[in-house]
Amino acid sequence: MAVTHEITPISIKWQEKFSTFNSNRMNYVREILKLASDPEMILLSGGFPDPKTFPTEAVHRLIDEAIERYGSNIFQYGDSRGFLPLRLLSLKYLSDRGINTEVENVQIFTGSQQFLQLVGESLINPGDRIIVTKPTYLGVLSAWDKFRPQYREVDLESDGPNIKQLEHEIVDGVITGEAPKFIYLVPNFNNPSGETISLEKRQQIAALAQKYGVPIFEDDPYRELRYSGEHLPTIFSIAPDHTIYSSSSSKTLFPARLGIGVAPFELLQRVTYFKQGADLNTANFTQAIFAEYMKDGSMERHIPEIVGIYTPRLQVMLNALHEFFPREFTFTRPEGGMFVWVRGPKVFDSEKLLPIALAQKVAYVPGISFYANSDTAERNTLRLNFSNQPEERIIEGIKRLGVIFSSNQ
Amino acid sequence: MAVTHEITPISIKWQEKFSTFNSNRMNYVREILKLASDPEMILLSGGFPDPKTFPTEAVHRLIDEAIERYGSNIFQYGDSRGFLPLRLLSLKYLSDRGINTEVENVQIFTGSQQFLQLVGESLINPGDRIIVTKPTYLGVLSAWDKFRPQYREVDLESDGPNIKQLEHEIVDGVITGEAPKFIYLVPNFNNPSGETISLEKRQQIAALAQKYGVPIFEDDPYRELRYSGEHLPTIFSIAPDHTIYSSSSSKTLFPARLGIGVAPFELLQRVTYFKQGADLNTANFTQAIFAEYMKDGSMERHIPEIVGIYTPRLQVMLNALHEFFPREFTFTRPEGGMFVWVRGPKVFDSEKLLPIALAQKVAYVPGISFYANSDTAERNTLRLNFSNQPEERIIEGIKRLGVIFSSNQ
Repeated sequence: MAVTHEITPISIKWQEKFSTFNSNRMNYVREILKLASDPEMILLSGGFPDPKTFPTEAVHRLIDEAIERYGSNIFQYGDSRGFLPLRLLSLKYLSDRGINTEVENVQIFTGSQQFLQLVGESLINPGDRIIVTKPTYLGVLSAWDKFRPQYREVDLESDGPNIKQLEHEIVDGVITGEAPKFIYLVPNFNNPSGETISLEKRQQIAALAQKYGVPIFEDDPYRELRYSGEHLPTIFSIAPDHTIYSSSSSKTLFPARLGIGVAPFELLQRVTYFKQGADLNTANFTQAIFAEYMKDGSMERHIPEIVGIYTPRLQVMLNALHEFFPREFTFTRPEGGMFVWVRGPKVFDSEKLLPIALAQKVAYVPGISFYANSDTAERNTLRLNFSNQPEERIIEGIKRLGVIFSSNQ
Repeated sequence: MAVTHEITPISIKWQEKFSTFNSNRMNYVREILKLASDPEMILLSGGFPDPKTFPTEAVHRLIDEAIERYGSNIFQYGDSRGFLPLRLLSLKYLSDRGINTEVENVQIFTGSQQFLQLVGESLINPGDRIIVTKPTYLGVLSAWDKFRPQYREVDLESDGPNIKQLEHEIVDGVITGEAPKFIYLVPNFNNPSGETISLEKRQQIAALAQKYGVPIFEDDPYRELRYSGEHLPTIFSIAPDHTIYSSSSSKTLFPARLGIGVAPFELLQRVTYFKQGADLNTANFTQAIFAEYMKDGSMERHIPEIVGIYTPRLQVMLNALHEFFPREFTFTRPEGGMFVWVRGPKVFDSEKLLPIALAQKVAYVPGISFYANSDTAERNTLRLNFSNQPEERIIEGIKRLGVIFSSNQ
């Protein structure tokens, strides 16, 4: 036994012990979040709801109701597939979106982010092709990068992905024996860029998925946040056998880290296995609160209040962009959601100007954060959030950015 | 544009799309959980706290206090590293365990299960050696299997791992250029088998870690559940630079899916990156409740009540095992925790007899679930839980098992 107390400890060089999983992508959203504690900072950066939209008063009642209805069960470990009452109530919630499915196909996750991660874990091998839009949601990149997929980008137009490019990517994959594992899309008010996929394109995308047997991941957290226009059918409702659907509590209740995932049973079985490794189960406690929120009609009554808060903020931001930004800048005009996407002239570099903006107490996210492949990232873009700041601060923030961008081109 | 509505859809064969990550391990704990809804079933299977131990009455007050103290912030998205007040309060909690560290080294996770998973993701490459005890916690296997480590097992004795085998495994790894990535240990009241590592062995393990520069993952969710004997120093307190430490809310508050992780800053930075992909952040809401629970002394006052409920249950189970089980069966005599481990004669097969037990409304977990390598799994073992059933049901359950095991050898 060679163990004594006179050893000279060998210190651990942790970096030499790291796995080879990729963790190199710069996450500006999370980096800038650290500035949120400065009350003077005009945060046009995050994707945060306004705390005014949280049903704080209702939460007590919801908890009381949940304890009365479900008892101490809501504090216990739970089913990895989710709290059964919430899964059952989700069927109605989903049916309102044209998603008619069975409870076996609906599970609850620790935020829709977890559902993204677990679907990736269940499906992606190194080198697998995943089709994403250009730009796309940062969260999928941080969820899936580690599985080393090959991201294939298609342009995102004002009415959705370029369909010709999409079909080309699918066909190219099928021909080369590398059919895309799936297509990832945000149908409503894309994060980061605000576009909504038109009905015609939804039908075309669904038809392509069916024609070539390629699944779609329809990530739909913003659907309720529509400020103009009509709700469109989900892609799932058009191609139910080819679509994985994801929703969330974050925009209608609060970011309680609750996601609703819909998928074929055999995929969900595998996802459940990985969920057990990831966090065993999502807390019954928060799931029971969400269940009560759905059940007693609080959610339906509350959504118009949320929409009422955000609608003028979007309008104010669009007006301010029109008034204060240089003429050469273009921007999207979303019908909902939380984000406006700005494109400057070719030489404009939003990352380079960020420190100047931060020094003047305005935060935004450089567009390069939202491109799957760094070599095709467009440096002249940026994402602006309008949900988290009152109207006068949005105007002031856009005004300051307009001055900075005018004098630094 | 070849898209029309007359296509014949190609259906998706999901299993052909699955990634190659391993998901084949049978999880009896979760399978048997599905039987929990049968009120007649005597559940000696899960690792569930008794709902009587949950501070249900206090939760309302804790929520009120949390809202008053932190405002609507507790409903918002949060820092991926955890809710800062909880991280700060955890410093005192940890200090009581001899873990004197800085807030930069303490983070909050969605259950300690998530911390396990993320440390694995941060460190394990395929083929890496991980040293575990035989038997070991099932949750680490479901968290780490997918990263394809090579599990190296050392025997678990009544006072902890066999130290000679442990040193042999380390030395063998160092010599062959495959030094173990880390050693995984449950220091107190091991899940599944109840043993506590003695002070002498803690010192020896710490010395080995220091001597060879091998990290220890000290997974300590049960520490507070001690029913006899004295608290022992954490391994972290002996070898702080070589130890990753994990604790949890599940046994003292309720399974709110909150874990406390302590690790070197450079490792936590990487863990945080992967946490963003996994679920962005743990809900501020549940973290704020746990913070209040720590802050106002509720936790310290409540732990003796929990211990008071479980102490007689353990005693009753040990007495019943002595009375009703065949003489050839041996069992551990834990000083705390939730589990007793039973070993039958060589020919006894606990998995084979499970259906008979379930038919007679008693559930247990076959021991084979808790072995990292299936070829060395001991089929004559089983895990019994005593925390989730009242005393008379524990006695009745053990009595029924005694009859089954006596007549089926």
